[in-house]
Amino acid sequence: MSDNQLANKSQAWSALFSEPMSDLVKRYTASVGFDQRLWRADIQGSLAHADMLAAQGILSAEDHAAIQRGLGEIAAEIEAGQFEWKLDLEDVHLNIEARLTERVGIAGKRLHTGRSRNDQVATDVRLWLRGEIDEIAGLLGALQRVMVDKAEQYADTILPGFTHLQVAQPVSFGHHLLAYVEMFARDTERMLDARRRVNRLPLGAAALAGTSYPLDRERVARTLGMEGVCQNSLDAVSDRDFAIEFTSAATLVMLHISRLSEELILWMSQNFGFIALPDAFCTGSSIMPQKKNPDVPELARGKTGRVVGHLMGLVTLMKGQPLAYNKDNQEDKEPLFDTVDTLKDTLRIFADMLAGLTAKPEAMRAAALRGHATATDLADYLVKKGLPFRDAHEVVAHAVKTATAKGVDLAALSLDELKAFDARVEADVFDVLSLEGSLNARNVLGGTAPAQVRAQVARHRARLA
Amino acid sequence: MSDNQLANKSQAWSALFSEPMSDLVKRYTASVGFDQRLWRADIQGSLAHADMLAAQGILSAEDHAAIQRGLGEIAAEIEAGQFEWKLDLEDVHLNIEARLTERVGIAGKRLHTGRSRNDQVATDVRLWLRGEIDEIAGLLGALQRVMVDKAEQYADTILPGFTHLQVAQPVSFGHHLLAYVEMFARDTERMLDARRRVNRLPLGAAALAGTSYPLDRERVARTLGMEGVCQNSLDAVSDRDFAIEFTSAATLVMLHISRLSEELILWMSQNFGFIALPDAFCTGSSIMPQKKNPDVPELARGKTGRVVGHLMGLVTLMKGQPLAYNKDNQEDKEPLFDTVDTLKDTLRIFADMLAGLTAKPEAMRAAALRGHATATDLADYLVKKGLPFRDAHEVVAHAVKTATAKGVDLAALSLDELKAFDARVEADVFDVLSLEGSLNARNVLGGTAPAQVRAQVARHRARLA
Amino acid sequence: MSDNQLANKSQAWSALFSEPMSDLVKRYTASVGFDQRLWRADIQGSLAHADMLAAQGILSAEDHAAIQRGLGEIAAEIEAGQFEWKLDLEDVHLNIEARLTERVGIAGKRLHTGRSRNDQVATDVRLWLRGEIDEIAGLLGALQRVMVDKAEQYADTILPGFTHLQVAQPVSFGHHLLAYVEMFARDTERMLDARRRVNRLPLGAAALAGTSYPLDRERVARTLGMEGVCQNSLDAVSDRDFAIEFTSAATLVMLHISRLSEELILWMSQNFGFIALPDAFCTGSSIMPQKKNPDVPELARGKTGRVVGHLMGLVTLMKGQPLAYNKDNQEDKEPLFDTVDTLKDTLRIFADMLAGLTAKPEAMRAAALRGHATATDLADYLVKKGLPFRDAHEVVAHAVKTATAKGVDLAALSLDELKAFDARVEADVFDVLSLEGSLNARNVLGGTAPAQVRAQVARHRARLA
Amino acid sequence: MSDNQLANKSQAWSALFSEPMSDLVKRYTASVGFDQRLWRADIQGSLAHADMLAAQGILSAEDHAAIQRGLGEIAAEIEAGQFEWKLDLEDVHLNIEARLTERVGIAGKRLHTGRSRNDQVATDVRLWLRGEIDEIAGLLGALQRVMVDKAEQYADTILPGFTHLQVAQPVSFGHHLLAYVEMFARDTERMLDARRRVNRLPLGAAALAGTSYPLDRERVARTLGMEGVCQNSLDAVSDRDFAIEFTSAATLVMLHISRLSEELILWMSQNFGFIALPDAFCTGSSIMPQKKNPDVPELARGKTGRVVGHLMGLVTLMKGQPLAYNKDNQEDKEPLFDTVDTLKDTLRIFADMLAGLTAKPEAMRAAALRGHATATDLADYLVKKGLPFRDAHEVVAHAVKTATAKGVDLAALSLDELKAFDARVEADVFDVLSLEGSLNARNVLGGTAPAQVRAQVARHRARLA
Repeated sequence: MSDNQLANKSQAWSALFSEPMSDLVKRYTASVGFDQRLWRADIQGSLAHADMLAAQGILSAEDHAAIQRGLGEIAAEIEAGQFEWKLDLEDVHLNIEARLTERVGIAGKRLHTGRSRNDQVATDVRLWLRGEIDEIAGLLGALQRVMVDKAEQYADTILPGFTHLQVAQPVSFGHHLLAYVEMFARDTERMLDARRRVNRLPLGAAALAGTSYPLDRERVARTLGMEGVCQNSLDAVSDRDFAIEFTSAATLVMLHISRLSEELILWMSQNFGFIALPDAFCTGSSIMPQKKNPDVPELARGKTGRVVGHLMGLVTLMKGQPLAYNKDNQEDKEPLFDTVDTLKDTLRIFADMLAGLTAKPEAMRAAALRGHATATDLADYLVKKGLPFRDAHEVVAHAVKTATAKGVDLAALSLDELKAFDARVEADVFDVLSLEGSLNARNVLGGTAPAQVRAQVARHRARLA
Repeated sequence: MSDNQLANKSQAWSALFSEPMSDLVKRYTASVGFDQRLWRADIQGSLAHADMLAAQGILSAEDHAAIQRGLGEIAAEIEAGQFEWKLDLEDVHLNIEARLTERVGIAGKRLHTGRSRNDQVATDVRLWLRGEIDEIAGLLGALQRVMVDKAEQYADTILPGFTHLQVAQPVSFGHHLLAYVEMFARDTERMLDARRRVNRLPLGAAALAGTSYPLDRERVARTLGMEGVCQNSLDAVSDRDFAIEFTSAATLVMLHISRLSEELILWMSQNFGFIALPDAFCTGSSIMPQKKNPDVPELARGKTGRVVGHLMGLVTLMKGQPLAYNKDNQEDKEPLFDTVDTLKDTLRIFADMLAGLTAKPEAMRAAALRGHATATDLADYLVKKGLPFRDAHEVVAHAVKTATAKGVDLAALSLDELKAFDARVEADVFDVLSLEGSLNARNVLGGTAPAQVRAQVARHRARLA
Repeated sequence: MSDNQLANKSQAWSALFSEPMSDLVKRYTASVGFDQRLWRADIQGSLAHADMLAAQGILSAEDHAAIQRGLGEIAAEIEAGQFEWKLDLEDVHLNIEARLTERVGIAGKRLHTGRSRNDQVATDVRLWLRGEIDEIAGLLGALQRVMVDKAEQYADTILPGFTHLQVAQPVSFGHHLLAYVEMFARDTERMLDARRRVNRLPLGAAALAGTSYPLDRERVARTLGMEGVCQNSLDAVSDRDFAIEFTSAATLVMLHISRLSEELILWMSQNFGFIALPDAFCTGSSIMPQKKNPDVPELARGKTGRVVGHLMGLVTLMKGQPLAYNKDNQEDKEPLFDTVDTLKDTLRIFADMLAGLTAKPEAMRAAALRGHATATDLADYLVKKGLPFRDAHEVVAHAVKTATAKGVDLAALSLDELKAFDARVEADVFDVLSLEGSLNARNVLGGTAPAQVRAQVARHRARLA
Repeated sequence: MSDNQLANKSQAWSALFSEPMSDLVKRYTASVGFDQRLWRADIQGSLAHADMLAAQGILSAEDHAAIQRGLGEIAAEIEAGQFEWKLDLEDVHLNIEARLTERVGIAGKRLHTGRSRNDQVATDVRLWLRGEIDEIAGLLGALQRVMVDKAEQYADTILPGFTHLQVAQPVSFGHHLLAYVEMFARDTERMLDARRRVNRLPLGAAALAGTSYPLDRERVARTLGMEGVCQNSLDAVSDRDFAIEFTSAATLVMLHISRLSEELILWMSQNFGFIALPDAFCTGSSIMPQKKNPDVPELARGKTGRVVGHLMGLVTLMKGQPLAYNKDNQEDKEPLFDTVDTLKDTLRIFADMLAGLTAKPEAMRAAALRGHATATDLADYLVKKGLPFRDAHEVVAHAVKTATAKGVDLAALSLDELKAFDARVEADVFDVLSLEGSLNARNVLGGTAPAQVRAQVARHRARLA
């Protein structure tokens, strides 16, 4: 029987254990089913560790070469789908290490010098997540670019802006789309802020206390492109802040997606009819032959719950855990992995889907002409004629009441009718009562005037370039 | 080209659609990857539906027989792992229905008469969940039985009861274990309460409004062993209360598991050393050769977060959804499935693990002798001698202060020393200051006296029989 | 200086403490600011406890009488707003007990015999919550009655039923309202299920282990109208399941409210225009004079988050807590109190508001005539003529495509046009293509036909009587 | 009757409303009970707005002066507790504006020119939160300074480091405390990252679309010390990301507090006995005279749930909200306010409490001598003698097994006994088997060697200076 601990693991964890792990426990505690996804980061981290061990004289040049060769072969095996993942070996780390020893012998057993699975897994997850954040930032950028293009296309298209889902004031459809660009731009900022805290190196913390080998942790950090080294070994192995912070940022992305989805669904509804989505992004009904349903935004809205759930799961996981590493922490991976997958799929599909969105300007316009959308413009008109705002507000309320009673929009009252509410009203009032007049008037920084929308489009393009 | 809608689905949803669904959308919206788990319930529901259609004269006897035969064959195919699930057919329902039509022709196309996927999926999930609840109730019972046995075994074993994790009063270890039996008993009650609301039939609600076929919904409910019929079609297809209620009940189970796990971990820690768990339920460390870690309770404590996350996900999912069915609802399945799996695995492994738990009475006893665990008994002694409780409390506080200053436990003070605090103290005080004296004195219903523990053991056995 | 522990509490907790609690700590840990709400339950519980102590001979008749008198006077003081709540005395329990001793002397000091604040507070919260559940059940009933009345009034009013917020099939507005009655009926069931687990007596568990006094716990339970006694003292003082279960049930109520609110807001929006709410339930805008906003449903939808948050707070609170009582548990009260307040206010205001809701049948009808709402009826028509459902579905999809291209609803196609899709179509097809035809056809149990709606109204009235 | 809208608000919202708001609705929708806390930010924002209106020629110098004077007087009234907050005026904004008009007449009515409550409240909350973040960052710094001082004091004090709550390796108590300093340092980073996104100006977005007045938004931003202007009016009024991001960051702080609390509670428990907290931070029991409970960390651990709940509440609030402002958003305030209060109180009390913490080095040392804490050192020793790590691990497992069977710690085995496991063992092995030897050996960056601890203390001091 071999004296190598890993070779005998299916019999017992080590000489200290009198019986093998129960099969139930093996399945309950094994992570290799999901953490094999980390294999590339695991090998990348091992290579950087071995490189440093060699540079520090802890590993001989021969052993180093053997490890490099062995890990390279293992990477090829995994890529080719020929690697056999074993439940008995628990996780991605022990699977790769045991295979390395099979391939290169004693040198493989030396790789784990000065490190522990505790710092190894933390390093793997951080390396992997850093890459995913970069992809997500790219997808957020792509989505923004699609929306900026649409915003430019629809800068002059007028739809009713709502507050309380009641018609409020006319806005540019391009302006409306740019509100989401702002959200996704903030999301990108948050992702990159989180990245700074992800991109720090736990390796060298070993099990919890650091190691007695003269490691050069900063060299490893440089090799891996990390911004710094975790400065406390206990914290390094037990910290999962980065997973929570990332998932919080992802939750905000999904909340924005949920709001956009809600609007897409509303706008697709026959009672709005503001937009069309390509057939390729809709589905039918198994029973109602006339249906064309906006499944993608609905599902995305639903998937918000998924990511929120993962955030809550991670928070619950960490609550009240004493230092340092506890097995609980293994539960960080599945929520994190699923959050990344959900986010990437959703961003990708939204960029595609929104590129195919078509506005229906007539329906938007018709809707904007219901609901006295220019009432505020009339109030502002009166203020400019000298009435204090609060008094103007009350005058217009009377006018709206009259228009409603007549069944027409405020803009459809005659000059005489309007004059009856305040003598200051003159013929130029109709300039401010038109949708275009109202829209163009809001020419303040961040306002809905098409000129402002175009300026924002230019600003976003420069930013996203 | 066939005129069957499903046969052409990979080209377009129906004649209404001008292009096939994009591949990205297909993957994003398909549920067959996870909802195939419902196949047995789907077939069971279809058989009951077909039976009723035939009884009502909506389906011919021949068609009925063909459907029965076809579904039977499909069940056999699935069990044998020979069924080919197609992403193009979206979900378990269309996969089975399309295969049925392949097998039995036109009769298969008639099965969907008077129903929709909206009521079908709700029926499937409820049928499936009912079965899982029954299994969970069984597992909760098994776990309770193990703990009741242990409670009997350790009825006389004394450990320090803690409040605020400070030594409070001596308690029976059996009594302590029975506290968890109470929790799991309540969990069972809640599961069965939830079951009543799960076990109602949505089928017959069709897409949302009911159907124009003369269905006999109560017959279907009887066939499926359901307790009643959902009385409103809009509610029937859009309700997911049952999933949330079940997941809430599951969250409480996991909270109890998290509390028990916390204690097992504490008790295994060298500073307590109150118990041992079998090696088969522990794991080692890749770096520290001396470690034997309680991975199972740690992981279970961590998995609490998982279930809590699913609860939060489902709640978020339903917030603000208008009636009736929305695609968001497809997101109910994965959290529900994973909650069921986590719960079952955890209950099973805890029953096994706790059966192997061994108490270390000496360590428990030694710990109980630190912390003046019988101080309350001294106060009660003084009350029985006539001192009001609040005054007795103060007298004992002085005695504890003195004992602490001397570095001994209260029970180690001499009679003279005790008398100095209150003249009413006599030699019989040492009966109440002993751990056994304290324990036996708490002979009130629900108290920790071994006699009470044994009475509770008997009560639980009767209940669980 | 008095030897009464409570009298000196501002100096030190007891003789054991060398310094007073820091002011910061006093404020941080005191609960009297919010738990004084429990005063009535606290006194009720104390009276039942004293009654039992007297019956068991633990308390003299004189002391018992003094306690009864004293507590009665304190209740009067509190009701009159003359009771001075002291932060130094931490909580409602010590405040009332200290005042009792001031009023009735030594008898007051005897009241705490055989109990602890740990079992006392658990008893208080349960007593209080039981009363609140009863109120909530009443409010749920009142809301249902209002909605049942509205359902009857609008049994024949047709609006488009939506799935995916796309026009699906015509439904009765009364039927739609009854979907919510089903939800609130389930909520009531859940509240009453929870009540059974709330209504159990912890008193007698004392600090954690039971007591050495010969208490008759079942007598106390009977006096307080409780259904049983908590059978394990450790569980009795540390269990907060009942708070979580109640808050889960409350979360479901609020989720239903959020869905109803979403619909009210949609229906109030000018693009729907399906309903009006009384002015007394709407608000205006500080800037837009034309606005009439549905603030109440919006705020209620927002308050869903509040209750969900409380649920998650309570779950987090209990995760991983070792037995028995920990100070963490004090944090159960504010979320519980606020959940109760939010729920009661919301149910009350919804009953009032919905009583004033007016439907706009013309707008509903016009909307139902967009979206080919009777397409399924045409498919069913063809099935009844012998076409398998899946083929009929495809035929109708072609017809809908043609109607859409012509810009008309399916029902507006001519007989010849319809015949072109399938020769089986005859003149009687127009019966099924009308909104009324479609509605009346769905005369299955739980379906939308007005006859079914009226039957359900009768059933609900009987249930709610 | 006045023609001022606000003066008549108790009668009707405006001329458009036919009846006053119901009292129930008034109470349900009013926010003045809690948002009056924003008064200082509201006045600050109004002053900056008025200043800009005057600079742009929209407001006359006289009106500007009157507004400045009026707002100054109102601030004085509020500070003096003489301001009468009216429920009829809903919120802090209308209360202050109405009072301004009472005081300075028509000028007051002109203040609301070019703004809406939608952008006003967003500005107020951001201004207020920015100030709170600065306070919190200060409190986080103060707490870190206390812990750094303690870390220096206890740099050489050895306690057992735990993983899985099993004795793992000896660590410096100072090192352990510095792990939390790392966490709080990251928290500070996150708070300041969030601050950048909080500190942007919504004002000028008006109700949702911008305004027709020629506002200079960048001037207002400069006056208020904000870093930029919200660039999209729809986003400006509907965004609550900043509240969620802040609450996420606060959740992480509380999670760290919960972990630290868990450890303080463990360390205070008699079975550990590692530390003492000052009496001023402990409380007693109403029934058990010997108790001294760590109420503050327990309560803080419980309050984690409170903040987690607020995070989930806010997330739920925003899910699926369409643009732009909805009344739901009013529900952002109470969770945000309570999060800030909880966080500040907790940080303050922890800084005070930890300053009084005393370590008990003997108890720590005794605990470190149980559990074979230097087993890894023995493995490393063998590696340095040429054995591959995985083989050394197995050798040591055998040694531990033997020591355990003998009932002694690994370090207590004799040289001969150790040699029996591997001949390479020599007398110098006892250097690595001592606690001090083990500790000093981990002299890698971030490791537990006292030299490293002192270096970290110096780094943190420089950082916090």
